Amino acid sequence: MRPDDSPAIGELGENRLVARFRTLASAGLDRGVVVGSGDDAAVLSVAERRLLLLTCDMMVENVHFRLDWARPDQIGWKAMAQNLSDIAAMGGEPAFAVASLATPGNAPEEVAEGITRGLVSAAAEYGAALVGGDLVGSQGPVVLDVALAGWVEREAMLLRRGARPGDAICVTGSLGASAAGLAALQRGLVHDHAPDLQRALKAHHEPRPRVFEGQAIAATRRATAMMDLSDGLAEDLPRLCAESGLAARVFADRIPIDPSCTTLAGRLGLDPLSLAASGGEDYELLFTCPRDAVDEIAAAVAARTGAVVSAVGETSPGKGVVLVDDEGKTHEFARGFDHFAAPESCGEGDGA
Amino acid sequence: MRPDDSPAIGELGENRLVARFRTLASAGLDRGVVVGSGDDAAVLSVAERRLLLLTCDMMVENVHFRLDWARPDQIGWKAMAQNLSDIAAMGGEPAFAVASLATPGNAPEEVAEGITRGLVSAAAEYGAALVGGDLVGSQGPVVLDVALAGWVEREAMLLRRGARPGDAICVTGSLGASAAGLAALQRGLVHDHAPDLQRALKAHHEPRPRVFEGQAIAATRRATAMMDLSDGLAEDLPRLCAESGLAARVFADRIPIDPSCTTLAGRLGLDPLSLAASGGEDYELLFTCPRDAVDEIAAAVAARTGAVVSAVGETSPGKGVVLVDDEGKTHEFARGFDHFAAPESCGEGDGA
Repeated sequence: MRPDDSPAIGELGENRLVARFRTLASAGLDRGVVVGSGDDAAVLSVAERRLLLLTCDMMVENVHFRLDWARPDQIGWKAMAQNLSDIAAMGGEPAFAVASLATPGNAPEEVAEGITRGLVSAAAEYGAALVGGDLVGSQGPVVLDVALAGWVEREAMLLRRGARPGDAICVTGSLGASAAGLAALQRGLVHDHAPDLQRALKAHHEPRPRVFEGQAIAATRRATAMMDLSDGLAEDLPRLCAESGLAARVFADRIPIDPSCTTLAGRLGLDPLSLAASGGEDYELLFTCPRDAVDEIAAAVAARTGAVVSAVGETSPGKGVVLVDDEGKTHEFARGFDHFAAPESCGEGDGA
Repeated sequence: MRPDDSPAIGELGENRLVARFRTLASAGLDRGVVVGSGDDAAVLSVAERRLLLLTCDMMVENVHFRLDWARPDQIGWKAMAQNLSDIAAMGGEPAFAVASLATPGNAPEEVAEGITRGLVSAAAEYGAALVGGDLVGSQGPVVLDVALAGWVEREAMLLRRGARPGDAICVTGSLGASAAGLAALQRGLVHDHAPDLQRALKAHHEPRPRVFEGQAIAATRRATAMMDLSDGLAEDLPRLCAESGLAARVFADRIPIDPSCTTLAGRLGLDPLSLAASGGEDYELLFTCPRDAVDEIAAAVAARTGAVVSAVGETSPGKGVVLVDDEGKTHEFARGFDHFAAPESCGEGDGA
């Protein structure tokens, strides 16, 4: 992993690394940034009459990523993408991020620099800026935490609560590509250049948060609740239903399984539906709306980015989420993975 | 450390812990919080005509804290205090925090719960609220990252740049107590109940950020630059001078060494001045102002909180920071510690 001429962080010293971080981070600054990285806090112009959104997500080496599976810039991209997806899930506009990184003193400089590059790229792609950070030494795994602030018009904001009985349950894009990519990594298919494998690996390492789709959905004012699919439909839909105080039915044959998921599941002897429903890390949007609004919202999303919207089920009064299979039988929707029971990206136990 | 009846995080499951986090975190919510922890992002009312401040600080077990030296709530307090101090250093008002925590699956539940309690207490003490967070598993050390947003009036904001030649260099409070507390811990004096030791340990574990002092200093509109003393005067003053493009002289006999530092240095055979100048983690404020403004600012701070302000030196055109000793000899001001060369709180190498 580490070329002989790549200085380690310990040799480089924190101040020089911080200076490099500043240089990299300043690339994404826009007019809203009064003072970026380098003072005690970033200083940002506050837009009036909007609500501030604030979120954070932490990624730990060998739990959420592996340095032998992902490039440092992909790790940075994904960390920022997770946060962007949280802002997307509110119908918001991402604005300003700060990131903290813990690395062993003997980590190659490329790790911190690559991660920062990825953070900056992902932020810039979606109109946000990395405005500050902290870089610390550690004797343990690389740990990356991103906090992201954004804005949303009060009237456009979508929460997890708000779904109504009889609403259609919709998702953007397709599901299962990220989980299929992870499964391929776990089984050592990384040197295979099949297009479906490459598509799945890209989905896993460089997810594209649905920021503009979220804004398009919110702008229609027809959706009733929204969240992002980070842990998989089988875990996230029950959360949305619990927040809204509703039950739900999902129809297996309506779940938009990504073609790469179907192909790779076949190669790996896995069930594509399970990967699509429980694999997680798709960062698609899950939302509810009146049934007669589905076409309008789908058209708005298609017009904005070309992404597809699929209605996969419906809400009803009560509790519990069930999956209706092709034969009309209902199954309790199994929850996805638990970080502590089975770490997210790497399939390795954490000593629990 | 772990009572037999204390459930481990792995047993408890993430969802239950997140629910406990929400309960704890909701205690600090004020009217500015539209939606706190539990949705994809916290939703916050945006104040008009003010600048948004955003900062983050990460703490790593066995680098920045040890679980056998500090209680979990003290670790949470200190993590929040570091961020509050960054907002204080801008003359700002802390508002909304998010926190991410990585813990091994076999960590006692009390660690996460205690840390959260400390985060919430420190935020509430200074008018801020913990509005969200992330809790992840890890195979490595406990890692805690806090991001804090705050506000500042555009005209009141103080940066590291802005000092002018001939300005007085001032600090709030006294220096060296935290470093003396750390030195005592490193040398095993923890079971000693001498008041000076207890004072130093409290300064080390539960620093009190100078939020209200920072606001008082900023409100005078007389200060020219400000930052907080997190790495020690010998490291932080050169940063302020570099940002302002100035040189500085500090007079050793004017440095307000905390009495507990003097006492403990005597017991431990250490130099109190070195501890006060280079030890770090005092979280006092360092600021510059015209010499004729020192009394006015000191009076404003005293009126607000009773804290003392000391003028310790002066800026001049040029580069470099020197310490003038009691005999009038000048010494290059040695920089404090480097996270990567010698980890901050625990005196243990990080493998570099």
